[in-house]
Amino acid sequence: MTMTQKILAAAAGLDRVEAGQLIEANLDLVLGNDITSPVAIKEMEKIQAAGVFDRDKIALVPDHFVPNKDIKSAEHCKCVREFARRNEITNYFEVGEMGIEHALLPEKGLTVAGDVIIGADSHTCTYGALGAFSTGVGSTDMAAGMATGKAWFKVPSAVRFHLTGRPGKWVSGKDVILHIIGMIGVDGALYKSMEFTGDGIANLTMDDRFTIANMAIEAGGKNGIFPVDALTESYIKEHSSKPYRIYQADEDAVYDEEYTIDLSTLQPTVAFPHLPENTHTIEEIRQMDPIAVDQTVIGSCTNGRLDDLRIAAEVLRGRHVAKGMRCIVIPATQAIYMQAMEEGLLKTFIEAGAVVSTPTCGPCLGGYMGILAEGERCVSTTNRNFVGRMGHVSSEIYLASPAVAAASAVTGVISSPEDLA
Amino acid sequence: MTMTQKILAAAAGLDRVEAGQLIEANLDLVLGNDITSPVAIKEMEKIQAAGVFDRDKIALVPDHFVPNKDIKSAEHCKCVREFARRNEITNYFEVGEMGIEHALLPEKGLTVAGDVIIGADSHTCTYGALGAFSTGVGSTDMAAGMATGKAWFKVPSAVRFHLTGRPGKWVSGKDVILHIIGMIGVDGALYKSMEFTGDGIANLTMDDRFTIANMAIEAGGKNGIFPVDALTESYIKEHSSKPYRIYQADEDAVYDEEYTIDLSTLQPTVAFPHLPENTHTIEEIRQMDPIAVDQTVIGSCTNGRLDDLRIAAEVLRGRHVAKGMRCIVIPATQAIYMQAMEEGLLKTFIEAGAVVSTPTCGPCLGGYMGILAEGERCVSTTNRNFVGRMGHVSSEIYLASPAVAAASAVTGVISSPEDLA
Repeated sequence: MTMTQKILAAAAGLDRVEAGQLIEANLDLVLGNDITSPVAIKEMEKIQAAGVFDRDKIALVPDHFVPNKDIKSAEHCKCVREFARRNEITNYFEVGEMGIEHALLPEKGLTVAGDVIIGADSHTCTYGALGAFSTGVGSTDMAAGMATGKAWFKVPSAVRFHLTGRPGKWVSGKDVILHIIGMIGVDGALYKSMEFTGDGIANLTMDDRFTIANMAIEAGGKNGIFPVDALTESYIKEHSSKPYRIYQADEDAVYDEEYTIDLSTLQPTVAFPHLPENTHTIEEIRQMDPIAVDQTVIGSCTNGRLDDLRIAAEVLRGRHVAKGMRCIVIPATQAIYMQAMEEGLLKTFIEAGAVVSTPTCGPCLGGYMGILAEGERCVSTTNRNFVGRMGHVSSEIYLASPAVAAASAVTGVISSPEDLA
Repeated sequence: MTMTQKILAAAAGLDRVEAGQLIEANLDLVLGNDITSPVAIKEMEKIQAAGVFDRDKIALVPDHFVPNKDIKSAEHCKCVREFARRNEITNYFEVGEMGIEHALLPEKGLTVAGDVIIGADSHTCTYGALGAFSTGVGSTDMAAGMATGKAWFKVPSAVRFHLTGRPGKWVSGKDVILHIIGMIGVDGALYKSMEFTGDGIANLTMDDRFTIANMAIEAGGKNGIFPVDALTESYIKEHSSKPYRIYQADEDAVYDEEYTIDLSTLQPTVAFPHLPENTHTIEEIRQMDPIAVDQTVIGSCTNGRLDDLRIAAEVLRGRHVAKGMRCIVIPATQAIYMQAMEEGLLKTFIEAGAVVSTPTCGPCLGGYMGILAEGERCVSTTNRNFVGRMGHVSSEIYLASPAVAAASAVTGVISSPEDLA
């Protein structure tokens, strides 16, 4: 069995599962946000008026349009808040406590190795970085999960990505996952688990791994998952008191496909509009006419973590954003915001002419805090560059790492830090 | 002549003006924001395709829905940005340079004593704190002002507010102006200049004076104006290299009404829904049933300055906001944000469970960053508590000082710092 299959087998109380098998698994955590929870709450209260299966195993994180961007989002948040109060949900996060869900839950120790997690948000796959099985579901599945503590899954087959080597100075987890999506396409891992292995993983920080697992869904993956090493265990112990379980793929695990990627050969990589698979390396971009940019966004569940802000600050320190450039930095959680402030990163951003937002998903999915006008172009560390995702249907999103976003903010055209004087 | 009349006479090139007289005055500054400028730009380009009268005397400050909250606001900002480029407007403030217009312009030294300033925003009266004549106009007047550098005014008659004494520890400029509006009503100074005099002024900080002048419009005033003293001159010299002119009211100036207010007798004052004149002192509020609050907002052109943040931090330091309270702090400009960060104020806010927003008008006028749901109640340091201004028509806004807002955030009910343990 693959690592994913072993976790699912254990959660279903089975010795063995096979790809394609339908199973019912016990859930360690059910997650919802301000967009998806109201629908789930309404459905759950229809099927089980008595309340949730376990008030400690549900996490409600209003983060998309929070602090409320309009009356509708305020009503949604009110619905979630009142549900959390009625059901005494332990892990409801109010404005001031909150952050972007997929950065917040690991930080709060709610997601650990071996967990089975569903979340009514497509980037729930993020927790695979910790050796958990986690996947995005719809609001109805969230409702059933909150009511019963269980979910049905079709056991996924797997694709293996064997990582070797050490990435160069300006190559991060974002470049790794963009490279992979460029290679296999946005449906390259459709309903499959993306299993990362190899000694190259030791050269990836936890924040790199979160970024990679986070975007598994952008290749169609059911989940993305990393083996648990000393770094993972140290992260879990630092953040959580929950018991965790380490699963390893069997020697004879079956993979539909296997890829070996030498991280040392990767370059800063950018996904052009309007699909994450439209990738170009910085070397290819240097051969093109300069691509002028109106806005850069550094944040989101993909790249709003401390490492991301440190890298962006390293690029922006002592420099200034280009004339007319809007550079928006969004620390993913309050803890990250505080730590970035303590380290002087926020000061660096503001001195460079950027603005710093309170934690929110904000512009990533067209919420607020940097929506694009007709024809505007944005380099963004977020995860999707679909038509109109961040604003007007004619606007363009270029997905990149914090290093590339920061460098592009300085030059006003798509650039890597190596292009800076 | 009153102080206002003397400024207007000089700007009209006249020895003398009288209340009710129609004059044409030269303008020192024409201001617009992201809401009002697009209309003004369209009109101006109809009447004068050649461009603006003086590219140094126009200030364009996108601040209301910026960073853009939606596609419409992004289009408005794009219109303003492109106009600023076409006309090489010196004082166009991009995201990262900007702040709330009425906090930003004095800080940037664009408004000094003796100036005549129009702005397509009702709180343009703020600059009266510096001994300038400044008033809000519509977008069409802004268009004419940008084209010609002139504006027509009906010279206002005046109401005098003679301030004496020293306000108590938790009594600020906000309490002074709320007290006055409560006393004379929201039309108490309709189309009149509100002229502040008296030795009590020496006991008001510049930020107190900005807050008081800012809300002159909430009593219907054409403008609010303070005499220029050593503190004013020191502020102007610190921020501006522009020449300034000091005007003083004549001994025999005529006032429609005169009020004397002993600042030492004032209490923290709160304007209840749905008019700024519905004021109650904290002593009166203590006699009522506790008024539970869902959200507190500390910011805006009225109360987002450094003194305001210092006071709020003094109250919040070592304390925590009430369970379920959303406390949103919005420094008014990037410089204020930076200074507040340097002084540890932002750290205090976040440790207390508040969130810190990038500078924006945000929720004040229902933009974003804290819109209210049905029936929700907010204590806000902003300037208007009209029905539905911050969200749902059934939501309620209580206008108060930063001290009262911060104390209410801690207790969860309307309180002053003296009510805290």
